[in-house]
Amino acid sequence: MSVLVVGSVALDSIETPFGRVEEVLGGSASYFSYAASLFTAVRLVGVVGEDFPAEHVEGFRRRGIDITGLVREPGATFRWRGRYQAAMNVAETLEVHLNVFGEFRPVVPPAYRDTEFVFLANASPQAQLEVRRQVPSARLVVADTMNFWIANERQGVLALLREVDGLVANDQEVRQLTGVQNLVSAAREILRLGPRLVVVKKGEHGSMLVTATPSKGPRPAAVHREAGAHPPERSATELFFLPAYPTTEVKDPTGAGDSFAGGMMGYLARTGDLTDEALRKALAYGTVVASFTVEDFGLRRLAAGRLEEVEQRVAELEQMTRL
Amino acid sequence: MSVLVVGSVALDSIETPFGRVEEVLGGSASYFSYAASLFTAVRLVGVVGEDFPAEHVEGFRRRGIDITGLVREPGATFRWRGRYQAAMNVAETLEVHLNVFGEFRPVVPPAYRDTEFVFLANASPQAQLEVRRQVPSARLVVADTMNFWIANERQGVLALLREVDGLVANDQEVRQLTGVQNLVSAAREILRLGPRLVVVKKGEHGSMLVTATPSKGPRPAAVHREAGAHPPERSATELFFLPAYPTTEVKDPTGAGDSFAGGMMGYLARTGDLTDEALRKALAYGTVVASFTVEDFGLRRLAAGRLEEVEQRVAELEQMTRL
Repeated sequence: MSVLVVGSVALDSIETPFGRVEEVLGGSASYFSYAASLFTAVRLVGVVGEDFPAEHVEGFRRRGIDITGLVREPGATFRWRGRYQAAMNVAETLEVHLNVFGEFRPVVPPAYRDTEFVFLANASPQAQLEVRRQVPSARLVVADTMNFWIANERQGVLALLREVDGLVANDQEVRQLTGVQNLVSAAREILRLGPRLVVVKKGEHGSMLVTATPSKGPRPAAVHREAGAHPPERSATELFFLPAYPTTEVKDPTGAGDSFAGGMMGYLARTGDLTDEALRKALAYGTVVASFTVEDFGLRRLAAGRLEEVEQRVAELEQMTRL
Repeated sequence: MSVLVVGSVALDSIETPFGRVEEVLGGSASYFSYAASLFTAVRLVGVVGEDFPAEHVEGFRRRGIDITGLVREPGATFRWRGRYQAAMNVAETLEVHLNVFGEFRPVVPPAYRDTEFVFLANASPQAQLEVRRQVPSARLVVADTMNFWIANERQGVLALLREVDGLVANDQEVRQLTGVQNLVSAAREILRLGPRLVVVKKGEHGSMLVTATPSKGPRPAAVHREAGAHPPERSATELFFLPAYPTTEVKDPTGAGDSFAGGMMGYLARTGDLTDEALRKALAYGTVVASFTVEDFGLRRLAAGRLEEVEQRVAELEQMTRL
């Protein structure tokens, strides 16, 4: 089955203690697509400007990424310039020019509307919700968000959560959203807001999956519930913890989170399986794909990665967590 | 088999957002002993003052902790007063009075010298090394240390590492000791300094075990090597990652690290098994025992814990990490 991503396509300039690159392909939809395309067909919705290099269009095509939904608008492509210090855990944004991405109202092309696995990359919660409603029959809709929207569009984020199946967020975002310090309690709190699965990304400390039980299969898509209706009570939750893949060569963390989501959603779409066991494996695939991303600048290492290498690292991860 | 701990016995006064207690039993050797005594016989070496309450002596005895090595000296017992803020991850020391512990030169009683499993709780590296040399035939000697010694007695810490089998330290200490940011690389670096196993404690993020391979059984005790001899080259290492047990009731983190070490060493001494598989299980037992400790002030919850409860949580941890 294919997977749909709606997000940004950008030209990134990045500086880390290990070097610098200028105007390389970046953006959430790019990282997600490259990651997910290791596993399955990918459909991309995004926007670029007139200056978007043809080589990147060709790069998408070569990986079998369907870019019917990649719109080209008058103006310049979204640009980001960032820097990482030695600890490599926080990006310092030096420049951001939204350009054509600033006015973007994503539309899911008719040919994409039957997609069963959908990822709403970081964007305004209003835009994410509009997209979500364009894929009413999707089996699994997972959203990302960020601190800016939680702080400034809180009601929008809450409205979005009522209509998606899953949230992928980092530890700080989960705490900020709920006001709860303990990550397990905070993630459980988010399950009460709508989603039936929450993935908490903890950077070098790995990730955590919290699901409402029983979760033998998908529940009816959240979008079918009446607006404002309270999500069903859930008495129990299932927890799963996974370390980060211990690569010791971290050169550029940009795109790690979207690569993680791409690996996770790509694996799920490939198997079509939404049991807890499959979700756990999906986290492992996401983790490993993200480990490739951070080993070089931009998409360089991820683009060179082969599925056999991914399988090899997943097997290692299994060995390194076996109690 | 029994386990020997050399460390502090203190009276702690603790304040956290969940309450406060005055002059409760504390100190590394107390937490370690209470934890390890869930699994096996414990021998304690420490010092208290004339004011040490008889009820605590009785408490050690009731748990079968051998206090032949608990010396009573003229003067007052070691006292510590600390406070935790909302995030609960760092203790702020408000008062510390070493009292009789300040001059303590630990002596391992003759009846203890055949102990095969030895834990050198945090102390000056010179004192730890003196103790280490009093148990030359131990199968497994594991040391703790802290930022103060790494900063001020670096050569002493390095000398200690050449003669112990294992180090248990937190993430910051491992980075400080090696100057390496990446925790896996840092832990591997420590293996080159002498120990064949390093356990890195990461608080709420769990723990990591790095061992030199092959580790089918114990290598000859480090103390038998010539002074200054370079430890054998090790080409490969084995990694294991474990999350913290996800208790949502953290009331007082004091003693978590020593409880972890006590659960770990207690389990190893009970089974007598030093394979990688046993070491992994030992980390799980340490993790679970520490989770009891933090759920109430001082030793209250740990003292009430039963082995069946520990087994139950270890089984949960196994379930929560199964890929």
